[in-house]
Amino acid sequence: MDKRLEKQLSFSLEIDKQKNILRQTHLSDHGRNETDAEHAWHMAVMAYLLREYANEKVDILKVILMCLIHDIVEIDAGDTFAYDTEGIRTQKERESKAKARIFSLLPEDQRAEMTALFDEFEECQTAESKFAHAMDNIQPLILNSSNGGSDWKEHNVTAEMVYKRQEKTRMGSQKLFETADLMIKENIRKGNLKEK
Amino acid sequence: MDKRLEKQLSFSLEIDKQKNILRQTHLSDHGRNETDAEHAWHMAVMAYLLREYANEKVDILKVILMCLIHDIVEIDAGDTFAYDTEGIRTQKERESKAKARIFSLLPEDQRAEMTALFDEFEECQTAESKFAHAMDNIQPLILNSSNGGSDWKEHNVTAEMVYKRQEKTRMGSQKLFETADLMIKENIRKGNLKEK
Repeated sequence: MDKRLEKQLSFSLEIDKQKNILRQTHLSDHGRNETDAEHAWHMAVMAYLLREYANEKVDILKVILMCLIHDIVEIDAGDTFAYDTEGIRTQKERESKAKARIFSLLPEDQRAEMTALFDEFEECQTAESKFAHAMDNIQPLILNSSNGGSDWKEHNVTAEMVYKRQEKTRMGSQKLFETADLMIKENIRKGNLKEK
Repeated sequence: MDKRLEKQLSFSLEIDKQKNILRQTHLSDHGRNETDAEHAWHMAVMAYLLREYANEKVDILKVILMCLIHDIVEIDAGDTFAYDTEGIRTQKERESKAKARIFSLLPEDQRAEMTALFDEFEECQTAESKFAHAMDNIQPLILNSSNGGSDWKEHNVTAEMVYKRQEKTRMGSQKLFETADLMIKENIRKGNLKEK
């Protein structure tokens, strides 16, 4: 087998491990914890179907690629819960090491491309990365909301904290932020989410 | 919330169920059964990274979308194992009903688009669908091969059966078929796969 393809297949096998990284979010119908790979898949499908709501015109292929690879570093760094302040403090360093190791399994041109995509997502400055972040926030919101807010209750998450997280949704899509806002208010009204 | 967005979010929640559909393939390191959503994610990432090996020039966004949605019907129809002759006999009818129900949750234009994508994948006549099928076959091959052929052993699958399945890989990518051929031969040599 030639070296280039061997590297590509070695990376392909390595990322299989992302299916073993569990998130705090639970599947609908009060299911088990979601895996990172499932979350990325769900975000990618939603990005395509909801692309008309992006604040700016987006290159949807680029958005989808960001959705697909944005959590690959968690193979080494583990999932950092969105509301885990201590974990977030060390997240950047852990993920930076992981990024270097995992993407270097690829041929150099693809290592550079995937690293750039990952960094663009993290920096959240471009239209594509903002919209991908909107997906990263809206996707767990619809799951958690469908489960009566059980993930929020388990971790004592307040509406204030959820709104802070959904700020990035607004950067990517005003329309989807307004929808998130409706869902959050409904969950407060139903007693699924504490205001403070 | 407006009707269009409500439908899009309702579909987005419905497809969460794909994370509960288990495949016969096991994750690397002799892990648990893979879920449909994880398989679709893995195929999509691989399609992007391996696109240079497609026999014909492909619209990679279209390939990725096919990878992402090609198993959504299994929410109703269940997973049909690639070597289950009896299951394959009734597969088309079960999946056709599922397709009608699930995609009709979307707004009409998106229902039509997703149905057309799904059908194009199934018919396997275009460059994009052939390459997506190559991913559908190569992805479980690398997992199973990494596990010493345990999925083949469990189901008494022979090299002859594996080669028949990999015919579609050749339609999408001669180069990847040749790689599959090397992997199959290596597995026969190691005693992981019976010839007949």
